[in-house]
Amino acid sequence: MRAPMFTGLSAFPLSPLRNDAFDERAYAGLIGRLVLAGVDSITALGSTGSYMYFDRDERRQVARAAVQHADSVPVMVGIGALRTSQVRMLADDAQEAGASAVLLAPVTYQALSDDEVFGLFEDVTAGLSVPLVVYDNPGTTHVTFAEDLYSRIATLPHVASIKIPGVPADPGEAAARVRSIRERVPGAVSVGVSGDGSAAAGLSAGCDVWYSVIGGTLPAPALRITRAALSGDHAAAAEESARLQPLWALFAEHGSYRVTAAIAEHLGLVAADCLPRPVQGLGTAARTRVAQLIDELDLAD
Amino acid sequence: MRAPMFTGLSAFPLSPLRNDAFDERAYAGLIGRLVLAGVDSITALGSTGSYMYFDRDERRQVARAAVQHADSVPVMVGIGALRTSQVRMLADDAQEAGASAVLLAPVTYQALSDDEVFGLFEDVTAGLSVPLVVYDNPGTTHVTFAEDLYSRIATLPHVASIKIPGVPADPGEAAARVRSIRERVPGAVSVGVSGDGSAAAGLSAGCDVWYSVIGGTLPAPALRITRAALSGDHAAAAEESARLQPLWALFAEHGSYRVTAAIAEHLGLVAADCLPRPVQGLGTAARTRVAQLIDELDLAD
Repeated sequence: MRAPMFTGLSAFPLSPLRNDAFDERAYAGLIGRLVLAGVDSITALGSTGSYMYFDRDERRQVARAAVQHADSVPVMVGIGALRTSQVRMLADDAQEAGASAVLLAPVTYQALSDDEVFGLFEDVTAGLSVPLVVYDNPGTTHVTFAEDLYSRIATLPHVASIKIPGVPADPGEAAARVRSIRERVPGAVSVGVSGDGSAAAGLSAGCDVWYSVIGGTLPAPALRITRAALSGDHAAAAEESARLQPLWALFAEHGSYRVTAAIAEHLGLVAADCLPRPVQGLGTAARTRVAQLIDELDLAD
Repeated sequence: MRAPMFTGLSAFPLSPLRNDAFDERAYAGLIGRLVLAGVDSITALGSTGSYMYFDRDERRQVARAAVQHADSVPVMVGIGALRTSQVRMLADDAQEAGASAVLLAPVTYQALSDDEVFGLFEDVTAGLSVPLVVYDNPGTTHVTFAEDLYSRIATLPHVASIKIPGVPADPGEAAARVRSIRERVPGAVSVGVSGDGSAAAGLSAGCDVWYSVIGGTLPAPALRITRAALSGDHAAAAEESARLQPLWALFAEHGSYRVTAAIAEHLGLVAADCLPRPVQGLGTAARTRVAQLIDELDLAD
């Protein structure tokens, strides 16, 4: 059986900065919103949570704050780093902070072979006490997972879920893609979709969970899509996703990371310039568009 | 005038590990070889020196050891990191350690726009006291520098040199490429070639300096190429480079990072498994080939 923690909506909050320091007060507010909205899990320190920009102490601080403010909602913590020994230390820190699971992307500087990626997961899972989510994020790691690599890694101890990139828009192709992954991994391993614009398609195609950028800041519409798709009302999920199309278009143009930060800044949930330099927030024109969309799509609640 | 430090051979030593800790004793030996051989500068903590895998304390330790053992040879120190504030701290550390210059690559996790890359260099150079080398390493940073970006960055204070990727093999095309960059940057900014297999071509095409992987471990052949090319004996430089073609072929197949580590391990200059996991050393067949090449090409001295 796939564990309930790895189904439904996993919300990825920002880890906002204020004057280049982690803004724990704003973070507590973001986590509180997610608890109130009723997300199924919170993933702290995902890509949206800027994990790679934070040092070990900061990441400990973020992990503790997430667990502290999440009440009974399970918290997963991203532990990716370039060196295996660093990842293992971050895994220890996350578990000490009370993480219910950890999330690991094979971050690269020197390109890694499949055997090296597998070795990373092998070394890290050997020392774990909690479940692990395999984080396949080719846009940032520059690692391309072949399905064969999924199947090798998925049989390692503690591997509980795989976060896959967006699925094809065509429902048949999406279902075939999810089925093909399922055939290669143990039945207890959940498959989660990412790429917010293809979440409705992914969940309707058989994914168990949506690892969601927008769900970390605007949980309400993300929950509408998730609940509809997982209850079998694929049409309602597709309709809500289509309604948000202008938002997905903005994600495609500027990246979901920058757009989500601009949304949180516009709503006053975080301070201005909440992203780590050298990443800069959106320019004025794009921010105006973000503000318009929040009104037009009724996203402010 | 281009400063002498940014001409000739800049040797990039490995930062060897022993049981996942920086092996300062082996490192002192590597630096000593470079001093003895007469390289023009040493670049500590380049990509070959695993900078992105080391934390701040380790990088301080490496920088100090490099300066301590380099005698009067100028030491440049790599300061790349994902967050601007981290880069600035590393710049301070490098300068405190006695670095004569710093080397900065725009490392990415979230992709950066040209304006963000420029902003990084602007913010970092504003706080510097020593010269800076712009490190254009698309294979690891996934940033593609347009020549226009070179010209914007090259006018910032303290920018003294640009490390460009390999040049075209054709001499005419190589010369055109170097000329095109020169036309866009101030005359005092030196242009350095990297990609060891195209170093002879790059220097003969007008580059001032070779930022050299192999020169950090096998300085003698790298100096032969450099001295020949920069004295105008392009044929001798090309001949020595052609003699080393089997080595460049191995670099192309396995990456210069892993092959150079295998060379240093084979020669007993560093401990076995000197690279940071998850990066693994070469497999048995490739190591046998490395050992053969060292004999055949007479590289053991």
